[in-house]
Amino acid sequence: MISGHGDDAYRYDCLIRSNFSSNVYAHVELEPLLTHLQGRLSAIRNYPEPEPYRLERALAEKLDIIPETVCVTSGATEAIYLTAMAFRGAHSTIFQPAFNEYADACRLHGHSVSSALPECPSPAPSTQALIWICNPNNPTGRVLSKAELSSLFLAQPDTIFVVDASYEFFTREPVLSAAEALRFPNLILLHSMTKRYAMPGIRLGYMTAPAALMKRIRDCRMPWSVNALAVEAGLYLVEHPETGPIDLDALLAETQRLRSALDALPGVSVRPTQTHFMLAALEKGRACDLKDTLARRHGLLIRDASNFEGLDETYFRIATQTPAENDSLVAAIAEWLSQ
Amino acid sequence: MISGHGDDAYRYDCLIRSNFSSNVYAHVELEPLLTHLQGRLSAIRNYPEPEPYRLERALAEKLDIIPETVCVTSGATEAIYLTAMAFRGAHSTIFQPAFNEYADACRLHGHSVSSALPECPSPAPSTQALIWICNPNNPTGRVLSKAELSSLFLAQPDTIFVVDASYEFFTREPVLSAAEALRFPNLILLHSMTKRYAMPGIRLGYMTAPAALMKRIRDCRMPWSVNALAVEAGLYLVEHPETGPIDLDALLAETQRLRSALDALPGVSVRPTQTHFMLAALEKGRACDLKDTLARRHGLLIRDASNFEGLDETYFRIATQTPAENDSLVAAIAEWLSQ
Repeated sequence: MISGHGDDAYRYDCLIRSNFSSNVYAHVELEPLLTHLQGRLSAIRNYPEPEPYRLERALAEKLDIIPETVCVTSGATEAIYLTAMAFRGAHSTIFQPAFNEYADACRLHGHSVSSALPECPSPAPSTQALIWICNPNNPTGRVLSKAELSSLFLAQPDTIFVVDASYEFFTREPVLSAAEALRFPNLILLHSMTKRYAMPGIRLGYMTAPAALMKRIRDCRMPWSVNALAVEAGLYLVEHPETGPIDLDALLAETQRLRSALDALPGVSVRPTQTHFMLAALEKGRACDLKDTLARRHGLLIRDASNFEGLDETYFRIATQTPAENDSLVAAIAEWLSQ
Repeated sequence: MISGHGDDAYRYDCLIRSNFSSNVYAHVELEPLLTHLQGRLSAIRNYPEPEPYRLERALAEKLDIIPETVCVTSGATEAIYLTAMAFRGAHSTIFQPAFNEYADACRLHGHSVSSALPECPSPAPSTQALIWICNPNNPTGRVLSKAELSSLFLAQPDTIFVVDASYEFFTREPVLSAAEALRFPNLILLHSMTKRYAMPGIRLGYMTAPAALMKRIRDCRMPWSVNALAVEAGLYLVEHPETGPIDLDALLAETQRLRSALDALPGVSVRPTQTHFMLAALEKGRACDLKDTLARRHGLLIRDASNFEGLDETYFRIATQTPAENDSLVAAIAEWLSQ
């Protein structure tokens, strides 16, 4: 496992007031879900279903697809590891920079791994090829269009595409729905409940794919990997999708305001983003030093992005929070830059 | 994944009043833990540690061993799958009958698998050999003594022994403590928090092994596999180990009373047990039919044990519950036998 993920407040003895580090918008009103879970806590007294079929059926109905094309997982992370396992020994190409777990999972399961598309060596014809794409992309915030993606899937019908759609809710760019994605026999879509509902502690994600691909992946899963409270949360959220409403237009507008404010600071450049987080780089100095100062002096947590493949020690990533928090962050970064 | 585990009340539309099916003693007073978790539900708002080091340190201190020898997992099940994965392609021998997941996990990770000890073919000298032992054994309730186990570990120093000690609390036979087990460089011990605290829905287990073995296994784990509420429960229980006290002597005495009552029924024989569950066999008829009748007519759930290797359709397993529940079960089985 690589070390160095976001949301690592536990590393700091100091109090973290604002957390920009994990691509989770922290201000989602979760009280109705928490109240529901309070009433269902005794679910821990029994085993969950070995495979969470009930939640899979509920999700399938909501997504207007058949249950055989849905696999609920312990966070999108389990979906990544199961996919890598199901295609053990494949050749995997990863559009980089991207979430580090694709490469980690692939190496753990004996894949040969290469970055980006054009330079990658062709795998031996007998080897299954996979291409991993994070869309919207973590950490850059870039979104590939439906047309761009579709033409990739059609141009390489023998390649399995794994598209991590964990941030699908957080963009106004058109993205493939689960039902649309099933038209492609070579496409696996990964989804996260964590991100939309700001509940990364409960570990709940799912994947959708044509039934034949899905079966291959299901055959790799262990029983009871999704705990009973995650199942309860999932069933509740399928029935109450408007829990913790997010004004997405406002959040994305605030993201652009934050991006402009940061980008205007001398010594920082911020990449364009089409989602609620952004990738920035320092002209001088190291992101890890900036991060430490922000945490210890200001109680603000950012993501040192230097361990993403293709990035260096100057990169950091931040997820938009409230305007007041974002203003604090800009001021604190400005102070650090001026010293 | 095999189908057919215990605790499958979800298969029945009818109300299950008493659950004998899952080796969990259901009458553990969990209110203090549930109250604690109620106050900590907002832990779902943040990622847990990628690897649950804080809980591993707390467990290590309690067990008087070093943290490098503890690995907390999403139930003992994840420990089984990680071990199989860490020794991919090994030759595994399983003392049967035993929990089916050992064989499933081993096959998934490319092991050659054989049953029992004496008849197994010797693996090629270059292949790592593993021996899996469930002790106390599920489903038989048999306990191998410390002396028997120790002599096995010493006699085959090049073999890795995986001993699933999930039921270690539920016997008066001497079993190896985590600290004692670390004296053997070839021994991995699997532990369950689920069984002692009757909380299988939360998914919490751990393994202990010498640091070198433990590192090999940790290298296989994915981040965030243990959810934030399981970590909270674990930390609470390490600090409050007397939560949900169980009068073990009374439970084991009641187990023997139940065993005698069942064994006295014409048409049933029950194996001797040294723990709180037992394996029984019908002289005529099938366990699945008995199970169905008990569930639908009486609301009593037992475990059809026919899918354990080496057992057949006549076998069922029951975990002792309260005397009144056990009496109901004996009466209901007697009624079924008489028809």
